[in-house]
Amino acid sequence: MMKPNLCRMALLIVLLSISLPGVAEDGYQLWLRYARVGNPDQANRIENLLEGVILPEAQAGSYAILREELSRASRGMLGREPVFGPGANGVATLVIGTPADLDLLDKESVRSALPGLGNEGYVLERPDPNGPLLIVANTPIGALYGTFHLLRNLQAGLNPADFLPLSESPRITRRILNHWDNLDRTVERGYAGFSIWDWHRLPGYLDTRYADYARANASVGINGTVLTNVNANALVLTPPYIEKAKALADLFRPYGIRVYLTARFNAPMELGDLETADPLDERVRTWWKNKADEIYEAIPDFGGFLVKANSEGQPGPQNFGRTHADGANLLADAVAPHGGIVMWRAFVYSADVPVDRAKQAYDEFVPLDGSFRDNVFIQVKNGPIDFQPREPFHPLFGAMEKTPLALEVQITQEYLGQATNLVSLASLFEDCLDAPTHRPFPPSTVASVIDGSDYGRGESVMAGVSNVGTDRNWTGHPFGQLNWFAFGRLAWDPHRTSGEIHDEWTRLTFGTDAGMVAAITELLAGSWETAIRYSTPLGLHHLMGRSHHYGPGPWVEGGRPDWTAVYYHRADTAGIGFDRTRTGSRALDQYAPEVAEAWSDPRSCPERYLLWFHRVEWTHPMGSGRTLWDELCLTYDRGVKEVGDMRRTWAGLEGRIDPERFGQVSQLLAIQEKEAQWWKNSCLLYFQTFSRMDFPPDMVRPEGDLEEYKSLQFPYAPGIQPSW
Amino acid sequence: MMKPNLCRMALLIVLLSISLPGVAEDGYQLWLRYARVGNPDQANRIENLLEGVILPEAQAGSYAILREELSRASRGMLGREPVFGPGANGVATLVIGTPADLDLLDKESVRSALPGLGNEGYVLERPDPNGPLLIVANTPIGALYGTFHLLRNLQAGLNPADFLPLSESPRITRRILNHWDNLDRTVERGYAGFSIWDWHRLPGYLDTRYADYARANASVGINGTVLTNVNANALVLTPPYIEKAKALADLFRPYGIRVYLTARFNAPMELGDLETADPLDERVRTWWKNKADEIYEAIPDFGGFLVKANSEGQPGPQNFGRTHADGANLLADAVAPHGGIVMWRAFVYSADVPVDRAKQAYDEFVPLDGSFRDNVFIQVKNGPIDFQPREPFHPLFGAMEKTPLALEVQITQEYLGQATNLVSLASLFEDCLDAPTHRPFPPSTVASVIDGSDYGRGESVMAGVSNVGTDRNWTGHPFGQLNWFAFGRLAWDPHRTSGEIHDEWTRLTFGTDAGMVAAITELLAGSWETAIRYSTPLGLHHLMGRSHHYGPGPWVEGGRPDWTAVYYHRADTAGIGFDRTRTGSRALDQYAPEVAEAWSDPRSCPERYLLWFHRVEWTHPMGSGRTLWDELCLTYDRGVKEVGDMRRTWAGLEGRIDPERFGQVSQLLAIQEKEAQWWKNSCLLYFQTFSRMDFPPDMVRPEGDLEEYKSLQFPYAPGIQPSW
Repeated sequence: MMKPNLCRMALLIVLLSISLPGVAEDGYQLWLRYARVGNPDQANRIENLLEGVILPEAQAGSYAILREELSRASRGMLGREPVFGPGANGVATLVIGTPADLDLLDKESVRSALPGLGNEGYVLERPDPNGPLLIVANTPIGALYGTFHLLRNLQAGLNPADFLPLSESPRITRRILNHWDNLDRTVERGYAGFSIWDWHRLPGYLDTRYADYARANASVGINGTVLTNVNANALVLTPPYIEKAKALADLFRPYGIRVYLTARFNAPMELGDLETADPLDERVRTWWKNKADEIYEAIPDFGGFLVKANSEGQPGPQNFGRTHADGANLLADAVAPHGGIVMWRAFVYSADVPVDRAKQAYDEFVPLDGSFRDNVFIQVKNGPIDFQPREPFHPLFGAMEKTPLALEVQITQEYLGQATNLVSLASLFEDCLDAPTHRPFPPSTVASVIDGSDYGRGESVMAGVSNVGTDRNWTGHPFGQLNWFAFGRLAWDPHRTSGEIHDEWTRLTFGTDAGMVAAITELLAGSWETAIRYSTPLGLHHLMGRSHHYGPGPWVEGGRPDWTAVYYHRADTAGIGFDRTRTGSRALDQYAPEVAEAWSDPRSCPERYLLWFHRVEWTHPMGSGRTLWDELCLTYDRGVKEVGDMRRTWAGLEGRIDPERFGQVSQLLAIQEKEAQWWKNSCLLYFQTFSRMDFPPDMVRPEGDLEEYKSLQFPYAPGIQPSW
Repeated sequence: MMKPNLCRMALLIVLLSISLPGVAEDGYQLWLRYARVGNPDQANRIENLLEGVILPEAQAGSYAILREELSRASRGMLGREPVFGPGANGVATLVIGTPADLDLLDKESVRSALPGLGNEGYVLERPDPNGPLLIVANTPIGALYGTFHLLRNLQAGLNPADFLPLSESPRITRRILNHWDNLDRTVERGYAGFSIWDWHRLPGYLDTRYADYARANASVGINGTVLTNVNANALVLTPPYIEKAKALADLFRPYGIRVYLTARFNAPMELGDLETADPLDERVRTWWKNKADEIYEAIPDFGGFLVKANSEGQPGPQNFGRTHADGANLLADAVAPHGGIVMWRAFVYSADVPVDRAKQAYDEFVPLDGSFRDNVFIQVKNGPIDFQPREPFHPLFGAMEKTPLALEVQITQEYLGQATNLVSLASLFEDCLDAPTHRPFPPSTVASVIDGSDYGRGESVMAGVSNVGTDRNWTGHPFGQLNWFAFGRLAWDPHRTSGEIHDEWTRLTFGTDAGMVAAITELLAGSWETAIRYSTPLGLHHLMGRSHHYGPGPWVEGGRPDWTAVYYHRADTAGIGFDRTRTGSRALDQYAPEVAEAWSDPRSCPERYLLWFHRVEWTHPMGSGRTLWDELCLTYDRGVKEVGDMRRTWAGLEGRIDPERFGQVSQLLAIQEKEAQWWKNSCLLYFQTFSRMDFPPDMVRPEGDLEEYKSLQFPYAPGIQPSW
């Protein structure tokens, strides 16, 4: 490799001394900021790497994207363009591609690394210590992923010598964002503005945001996007909307991203073609087959359908006396000839209110195991209720041997502070993925169940409900970006740790200042537990405000019981909690015996799940030696105090973070502290009406008036589905 | 002035040679881009000007904003910070402030320039040819406006020697954006995403966009903002929302911008306090007085209320048997003690469908002349119908001697192609402002009526319905920014020409390349007439689709007649047009005799107003010698062809405009051409069913099927008011 000449070094010094002119850190760039590199050694390393970049010629497609990404990175990190083609003296410093696309890579030593990488994996290596760094893959997409890997590590301040050689391929084949976006651009449970899909101006106008969205996803390995809400609108299946979806699919394709749509089960009726949607009716089967053919004609790599059926008012096969399997197979047969899949959600409701909402998905789906087509995935939320701040893993994981299950997590923070609370979901996702299911066999975990390795299956799905919207920084809260990033990184490799993700994201997002990185990663590490403490500690769940789910509502009652808070916490003067043991709903029996056993005794059940599985007296003795009541009070109080600690930590970073984002997060942490106090005050004043016990002395007493908290109204809180 | 030394010049050359690293032209910066100056002479001039900047010390407020703006400008245009304080050798190059705030300016020679400038005017001068440039004003806001003037001219590539000295003060005292923004963040007639007001996170979270919105407005002299929709929600008058509005008012104040709100007339009832909203009821009067006091307690410089009453379903004084004057005076009395005003809209509807919708405002308001309080403005749309592509000026202008009238124009393009058509409204605004009203006396124009000069009034109002939304570029269409800019520039000085505005905006927005500026300004100059030609030529109006107003709907009938198209065009086999002469509705009699006279004869009436005022036969002879039918056909055809010309002009600019905006506008012009064809095809096929005449041979024949055009549905077109 050539040493930079003096002339270039002098220029480099000038360039490094110039701050970016007038560019505010508005958050739009996400973790792809490519901030100017301040460390001269590191800048030199990157400079050397980019002074002779060889890659296949392309005017469009993945290689063109890859080339443009290298340019962006170089302009940002160094203030200059990379040298494409051999550098001075004909030297190549970075070679990227597949053996098929680049003769230079078509030799045995390179090809031998490729089997096993699949269509998305890549190798980064420098076989000759004085030769170029190679990024080799079986496909252009693999090369793009490898390039993003390299750029991520360079941005994070790493030295290639410390991470080469490496080889990666994804553990889960379909890594999909679920957009709960409506055609009117509202977003159900969206807290970052409105839908980025400007349906009205599609297909003629392609917002530049679409390409940036695709870049961001590709950079963390997300390879699918369901454009529309699971509370589905049949209109998206009409020709004008298929044309609009096609425009997005065409744009996303070179980024390795497939488009999926939600299928409204009654579409054959609602679009005016048939008077039934019975899945066993031949006309209905033909309708869906024709519809699938029409979609695939426009979008040859269309991913398939996501379906919410017979749940929260959505139509489904049960309306016609048929089973979920009948419904899923109908659609699966329609897309199968084209290689499509159906993701059928397990989040269902019976018309009758069940004894225990937590049991329903298991009760409905386990009997159907074996009756689904091969291209059906049952998409299961991480826990058995509904994305609560903390849930035990869903008992379906490991319980269906013959049916692949997809994991659905929620990236948007419906129950975790929406767009005003700083909460790392990397911790929540990790908690679920690592949970030992003991089924199909130890040491099975949720991760090994869904990535297919327990069953030797080739295809697998992980879905995340998107938190992306029209806000300039995409996610409303600057730290919401972490949760999008974390979803992608964990869907690629469910065994990655939250700590690794926090560290990597912080470096990419805020820079490599070691003290700052340490402070933020510490903040992140505790943030999920803190949010649980001030909202739903000790296994409590479903205490939020009605409909908008903003803030506390432990008093919510009336209407359908399993949509209230009192149904779940069951507080009265005798105690609190939902008995899901054999003396109660027996929901625990849905888990493997080892799990059920470990959680069945209130004295040995982990306290984080205590009130989830058990109903106990207010004086129930806790591990700390305190009563349950005192523990509950002190936990809420601790949660609030920890937000104060977070504020102080953040305040200590002033001057080490750009003023825009520093100010934004400062304001949001102040709001979070108020909201934490609101949760604590509301819940403790409310539960005290049952416990009739004093607050323990060593805490800040709850303030305010319970009736006033109950009277608060938020008619225009964001994210409410208009039709609810 | 000091010459730059060699060292600095060398650095400057390096800096000028560097393109901005990775910064896409996303449009967020509007006309405040401060692009790097490429011309070395010009860069030198700016460099010299900013190497010793003296201004009053301030940590916050207008001077701090002004200082930050100079920094942004310098970083952008030169790549370096200005020198604040005396420069090398103690030399001042730019001195900004008021004599009261800066001793340096407190001398007779400076103070003598200030009388007559008012609170917002400024002087830019260089009294000593070798001395500093001075920006002097009576207030910090005036100094801020003067600074924006200087920076605008520097950005546009002008040499101070060519524009100094100058002195400006606004001709209209209140230059106000009207946001039709709802509390759920939808925007009625908004085509640029959703409301930038994030009410949910206010007051705790101040989106950085708020300050950028204020900067943009201040830079063109807009000094007021009505935050909420004229279809008003009483909730904004409750304490939590007043606190949110206060947060915005506090932020906007140092930018010289006052906050206004819309007042829901029935608020005393809807907020649950009273069972009547009768303006003569003493309890109602007390309620509004207390409400105004409460608002002014939070926002001492609150501007006042904008009211839409007894119009399109909005409640008003007529519900209680009272007049518009009773209603307006009720609110005027409430805000008068605090210096507030009431803007009462003349856009009203009687419960009964009138013989001629165009006459209604005049009929209702002229009899009330003299009965309004001094702090009431009657806010009148530019034309008598409703923001149609072209309307004759509203007959109320000049017809109310004792009542100040405010002009309301629509910046958002409800009827002019929404966010997909490139249309300069500078031409439309100019057309209205320059219209000779002949009242109160020649040479009165709409401008001299509303700026108060015809009556010697001190206060005046011009309002523009905002086109701002959450889109990254604020206005959806990149050229929508021009219309926001033009509103501000014309409200400051209604005598400015559209040509001046086009030239200035183009330079600020796209750069100073002379050929490019010439091409774009030519494009802009014809854009309004082109849009009229392909949508509503020859005085046609109100032909748009129902409810969403997107695209053509000349066939719209049924429901309230004056909300249909057929009510306005009255086409049948005998002819087309609305007879507003003495043989018809006599609406022409509402104008001054000179005007009525000039427009009353279909043979001499300007053809642009022909079908507005006259009903004529299809064979009516036109000035060209053609029949009306042929002229109509050829005009639609010409409009479409002109959009083709616009596309070709734009395509010729490839490489001279950044690829992002070049691509965006290219796509939008392609959509505009399709929409123009859709208008032409729909309207001509529809009108042909009445004219029963062939299309003239020298045009492109309309394509498509009328029934198919009529069947098109756009349920999710943007901007529909949810409650309509």
